[in-house]
Amino acid sequence: MSSGGFRSRHLAVVGLGLMGGSIARALRERSETITGVELNEVSRQYALENRIVDIATDDLKAGVAEADTVILAAPVRIIQDMVEKRIGSYLRSNTLLVDIGSTKQDICDVMGKLPVGIHAIGGHPMTGKESNGVQFSDAALFKNRPFVLCPTRRTTPATRLRALSLVEALEALPFEMDAHRHDHLVAAISHLPYLLSSALVATVAKQGEADPIVWELAAGGFRDMSRLAGQDVQMMGDILSTNTQAVATLLALFRVQLAMLEAMLVSRDDQNLSEFLRPTREARNNWIQRYENGSKNSK
Amino acid sequence: MSSGGFRSRHLAVVGLGLMGGSIARALRERSETITGVELNEVSRQYALENRIVDIATDDLKAGVAEADTVILAAPVRIIQDMVEKRIGSYLRSNTLLVDIGSTKQDICDVMGKLPVGIHAIGGHPMTGKESNGVQFSDAALFKNRPFVLCPTRRTTPATRLRALSLVEALEALPFEMDAHRHDHLVAAISHLPYLLSSALVATVAKQGEADPIVWELAAGGFRDMSRLAGQDVQMMGDILSTNTQAVATLLALFRVQLAMLEAMLVSRDDQNLSEFLRPTREARNNWIQRYENGSKNSK
Repeated sequence: MSSGGFRSRHLAVVGLGLMGGSIARALRERSETITGVELNEVSRQYALENRIVDIATDDLKAGVAEADTVILAAPVRIIQDMVEKRIGSYLRSNTLLVDIGSTKQDICDVMGKLPVGIHAIGGHPMTGKESNGVQFSDAALFKNRPFVLCPTRRTTPATRLRALSLVEALEALPFEMDAHRHDHLVAAISHLPYLLSSALVATVAKQGEADPIVWELAAGGFRDMSRLAGQDVQMMGDILSTNTQAVATLLALFRVQLAMLEAMLVSRDDQNLSEFLRPTREARNNWIQRYENGSKNSK
Repeated sequence: MSSGGFRSRHLAVVGLGLMGGSIARALRERSETITGVELNEVSRQYALENRIVDIATDDLKAGVAEADTVILAAPVRIIQDMVEKRIGSYLRSNTLLVDIGSTKQDICDVMGKLPVGIHAIGGHPMTGKESNGVQFSDAALFKNRPFVLCPTRRTTPATRLRALSLVEALEALPFEMDAHRHDHLVAAISHLPYLLSSALVATVAKQGEADPIVWELAAGGFRDMSRLAGQDVQMMGDILSTNTQAVATLLALFRVQLAMLEAMLVSRDDQNLSEFLRPTREARNNWIQRYENGSKNSK
C-alpha cells in the first residue's frame, strides 16, 4: 500500500494511559505537535515531563481543536459518550479520528453519525501489559501485534489509507474487518475468558467458605486461570455490556463444549474423552508456538 | 513434632520423572542407598549418571525389596494398579509407603488393603514445573509448598510421624486431611480449571473453523487461560476419571456462578454485576499476594 508513511502536523491523544501514552511515544518522531487530553493531573504531568506530549490539557475541546489526527484511547463507554455527544462539533474537517476501544460495534455506530468530512474509523490494538498507566507506556507495545481496523459510515478510501499508515507507523499488523465480526472474535478470546476466570474464582470462593484450606493449596494452574478475574471491574463491565449479544453467543458455544466433556467423564467414556482432548491440546500447542514466535520477533 | 529428622537406610523411588527425581535429590543426604525403579532406560541412565540414584532398575520387585521407604511417583492409574495387584507382597514389614498421585480416594482405598505392617499413607505435593522429566528435577521443588497427607487404613501414629518427617525433610508444608476432602479441593483448583481451559480452547477452535482469524488475534489473556489445555491428555484423563464425583460437584457449582454472571449481563443489571465481580476480584488479588509472598520465601 502506498500510504507514504504516517505524518501528523498535530496529533491529539485523548486518554493518557498505557495505550494512549504508548501511541504518543510511537508517533513522537512523526508528529510536529502532540497534545494529550487527560483528566488525571498526575498522568498529564508525567506525560509532559517525559516529553511524551508537548501540551497536556483536561479540556477535550481545546485539546482536539487544532488536531489533524485524533486518537481516542479511553474506556469504551467514555469513547462512545464523547463521539455521540461532543467531539463532532470540536473537530476540524478532514481530521482522522481513530478510537482504540475494546468493543467496536457501538462505537462504530455512533462514529457513523459524525459530520461528513470527519475521517472516522474504529481501531483495536490486540496488545497490553500486566500494568496499566502512562508510566508503563512503551513505543514498542504494538510491534508485530494485530491492530484491528473497523470501517464506519465515515470511513472513505482516504480514511482507510491514513489509518493503515498509522498502523504501519506503530509497526503493528493491520486486520481489517467489520465491527460485528471483531466483537464476536474478541468475545471468544477476551470476554468469555474473563467470565470463565471470574466464575472460577467465585466457585473457589464458595468452596473456601466451607473449607478455607482451598486457598492454601491453590498453585500455578489456578494462578493462570484466575489472572483475568483480577482485571478492573468497571472497565470489564463496560466492555461486556457493549458486547452482550456476542458474549451470550460464545457462552452458549462454550456450554456445549463443557457439557460434552462432562458427559464423557461421568459416563466414563475414556475413548471419546481422549478423542476430544487430544485435538484440543494440539490446537493449543500449535497456537502457542506461533504466538511465541511472533512475540520473539517483536523484541 | 519430634520426628527426629528423616533418615532412610534404603529409599526406593518408583517413577523417575520430575517428581520422583526431585524427591530423590531432596532426600539424597538422608538416604544411605537410593534405588530408582523406572521403565524408561534414558531416564534411568540420566538418574544414575547424575547421582540422583545409586541403583536403577526396571524391576519393581527387585527395586523395592530391600527398601525401608518407598515413594510411588507414577501416574495415578499405575500407582493404583501397583498397590492393588503387586506391591503388597514385595515390601518388607515396617516399610513406609507414600504415593504422590494427584487424586487420593481410590489410591488410599487400595492402600488400606495392603498387609498389616506396611506403613501406607497417601501424599500429594502441590507443586510442579512447566517441564516434566527427570532432567528437570530439583531438590528445592517442594520448599514452602503444601504437601497433603491422607491417612489410609494402614496409617498408624508411627506412619504419620515418619511421613511428617519426610515432608519436613523436603522443606514442604504438611496438610493432613482425609482423601475425600483432598479430592474435592483439587477438583476446584486443578481439575475444574483443566476442564474450563480445554472447553475454552475447543470453543475457540469451533469459532476458528468459521473464522480462522480468531487464532491470529488471540493474545495474553487467551495464552494464560489455555495453558492447562496443553497438559498431557493421558495423565489428565486418568486424574479426572479417578475423581469423577468431586469434579461433577464442582462443575455444578461453577455452572451456577457462570449462569448468575450471564443473567446479570443479559438483563443489563450493572449494579449486581459489579457487586458480583468486585469481591471476586478482591478474593483473587488477596490470594495472589499471599501466593507470591510464599513463592518468594521459597527462593
